[in-house]
Amino acid sequence: MAKPRSILGERAFLQSLRARAAHLADQHCPVSGLKLGIGDDCAILQPPPGHQIFVTTDFSLETVHFRREWHTPESVGHRCLARGLSDLAAMGAAPLAAFLSLALPAELAQPRRGQLAWRKRFLAGFLALAEKYRVPLAGGDTALSPLFPMDRTQGSMFTGPALADIVLIGSAPRNWALMRSGANAGDRIYVTGHLGGAAAELAQLAANPRRFRRCKKSVTGSPNPHPHLFPEPRLSVGAWLLKNWRATAAIDISDGLSTDLDRLCEESCLAAVVNAEMLPLHPLVQPKSHPITDESLELALHGGEDYELLFTASPDVRIPRSIAGVPITCIGVMRRQAPGQARIVLVDEVNGRRRERPLPPGGWEH
Amino acid sequence: MAKPRSILGERAFLQSLRARAAHLADQHCPVSGLKLGIGDDCAILQPPPGHQIFVTTDFSLETVHFRREWHTPESVGHRCLARGLSDLAAMGAAPLAAFLSLALPAELAQPRRGQLAWRKRFLAGFLALAEKYRVPLAGGDTALSPLFPMDRTQGSMFTGPALADIVLIGSAPRNWALMRSGANAGDRIYVTGHLGGAAAELAQLAANPRRFRRCKKSVTGSPNPHPHLFPEPRLSVGAWLLKNWRATAAIDISDGLSTDLDRLCEESCLAAVVNAEMLPLHPLVQPKSHPITDESLELALHGGEDYELLFTASPDVRIPRSIAGVPITCIGVMRRQAPGQARIVLVDEVNGRRRERPLPPGGWEH
Repeated sequence: MAKPRSILGERAFLQSLRARAAHLADQHCPVSGLKLGIGDDCAILQPPPGHQIFVTTDFSLETVHFRREWHTPESVGHRCLARGLSDLAAMGAAPLAAFLSLALPAELAQPRRGQLAWRKRFLAGFLALAEKYRVPLAGGDTALSPLFPMDRTQGSMFTGPALADIVLIGSAPRNWALMRSGANAGDRIYVTGHLGGAAAELAQLAANPRRFRRCKKSVTGSPNPHPHLFPEPRLSVGAWLLKNWRATAAIDISDGLSTDLDRLCEESCLAAVVNAEMLPLHPLVQPKSHPITDESLELALHGGEDYELLFTASPDVRIPRSIAGVPITCIGVMRRQAPGQARIVLVDEVNGRRRERPLPPGGWEH
Repeated sequence: MAKPRSILGERAFLQSLRARAAHLADQHCPVSGLKLGIGDDCAILQPPPGHQIFVTTDFSLETVHFRREWHTPESVGHRCLARGLSDLAAMGAAPLAAFLSLALPAELAQPRRGQLAWRKRFLAGFLALAEKYRVPLAGGDTALSPLFPMDRTQGSMFTGPALADIVLIGSAPRNWALMRSGANAGDRIYVTGHLGGAAAELAQLAANPRRFRRCKKSVTGSPNPHPHLFPEPRLSVGAWLLKNWRATAAIDISDGLSTDLDRLCEESCLAAVVNAEMLPLHPLVQPKSHPITDESLELALHGGEDYELLFTASPDVRIPRSIAGVPITCIGVMRRQAPGQARIVLVDEVNGRRRERPLPPGGWEH
């Protein structure tokens, strides 16, 4: 409709991004599958011979997935890419390239009070994670965020929200993917890392955003000190599981254990029993391991955005206690679904007596 | 942040979409490259042996690319997919799968005044074009459009704009792509179809949106009767050019001839001469062919969104007058760039005298 020519200096910005992305691709991915990056109608990728292509897309929308008042731009950029990488990890695929579509209100493209523009800081966060996992940024789209008419009958306009859409392309050997649908009755259920940390850190962030304003991604230890602001995609674990044929099914915990396990059960046509006392709680949820409070359990079961992997494996298969430096915990078992029974049952012990209760999906539904 | 559980009945909606997409994939693409569609962490594609992968992403943002008051939902859905398909066409690639990320304010997901919901009509337009070109819808993301704070210091919130991000994955034999960078000095410049029609129809639409409210995509004739509302991606022409090795370079005219030809020149390190009198004007621009008014020329050169292909070919190569039923017109020639000279020169005849003038890019810059 309108022609906002060079309002953001898009051409210059894209050229600098193109140079940076090309540099990254050359330096870190000398044998990468990216044959043609930013600058033509499409990017061209060359997957390794015998590989299939994996594609995932995820929105990051202001006020839905992040808030400018809470999250640093670096965290928004990191989280945007981490979500897509986590989807690849859940299937055991290796990333080939990322595509970023970014719509920003004009004020976020310009420097403010002598600081770098929000956009540059967003990209710094995005590209730091891309560099770590050697994922070339191969294209995307940019736009001024839509001017939003407050009242459609009048003419008043406001600048729109910031939003990003991330596309990840990955590859894995033909017919080797970790699917949600492959679990068998009797399989053990495992999770990587720790649960509930992202939800716990989000609550702290909401209560006191100032405390987190200078928060930077640290070299990841375990547990990750910033599970919400800088989640770590479990690419190495996914790749290990795929390569060693250990898992029967997998999914990433983006929307909460209860919701993502429910999806895995649905796709595998099975039910599950989860042992509450085996859940690996993040120290931000509860520093001591016993007794688990109801609040801690709520965060670990329904919190979401932990981006850990949830996978199943045959009881006859040995799963190490840690894979690629990430702790692995068995939290339950898959079983046949009996008619009228809840799909997921949570088991714990109260006063020495075993208690079973249904666990309905309580995480994020899109 | 918030957990808008089932506000839009997302789960039911996604299930119906998944069923429809799977049906489409089965019915129309029995040998398609889509191995796993909606329902896991990633979609899985199997490109034909020896093929490379092509990826393009495009935003469709309310008030930037469409207006709810002007465009029917069917047109918005059609245009959203057509933009991505046109990028594949420009490189000669065949589509493998589409991914659609859609963020809508709640009111567009519900039926209104006994009519189908905006979202359903959007998808009808999208899927009709997908069906025509046998492109399975293999995934994407859905979200409630961000609630937008009018005043960040206060708490007042408004529903956000409608927006879509489309990703197209295509394939073509290894090292066969039509690139922007392959033109040689002396190559002829060609365009498909007609120019300026989209801009002319947009002007009519803006002047009288009611007239277009019942406008439907017709079986495409040539010229396309609705070049703005229902543009036709030139996939068959792109595929023909690739298969027959006739073109040296190609780009699609999404942002206007002057801007897209400038990009092709830049990537090929060349300049171009365009003959104004050879431009194939769309009948909506000017019913008679002579004399060309300045307004008509403006629409044809800078109008944008025609989604025709612009390509170059050696003067020794025969280019037919029509390819796959689409007329092809020679509009100029590529040449070396002389220092200090304009990159694109427009030539016409005034009172029997040849006139040359520089043609700066005047279309849409992102």
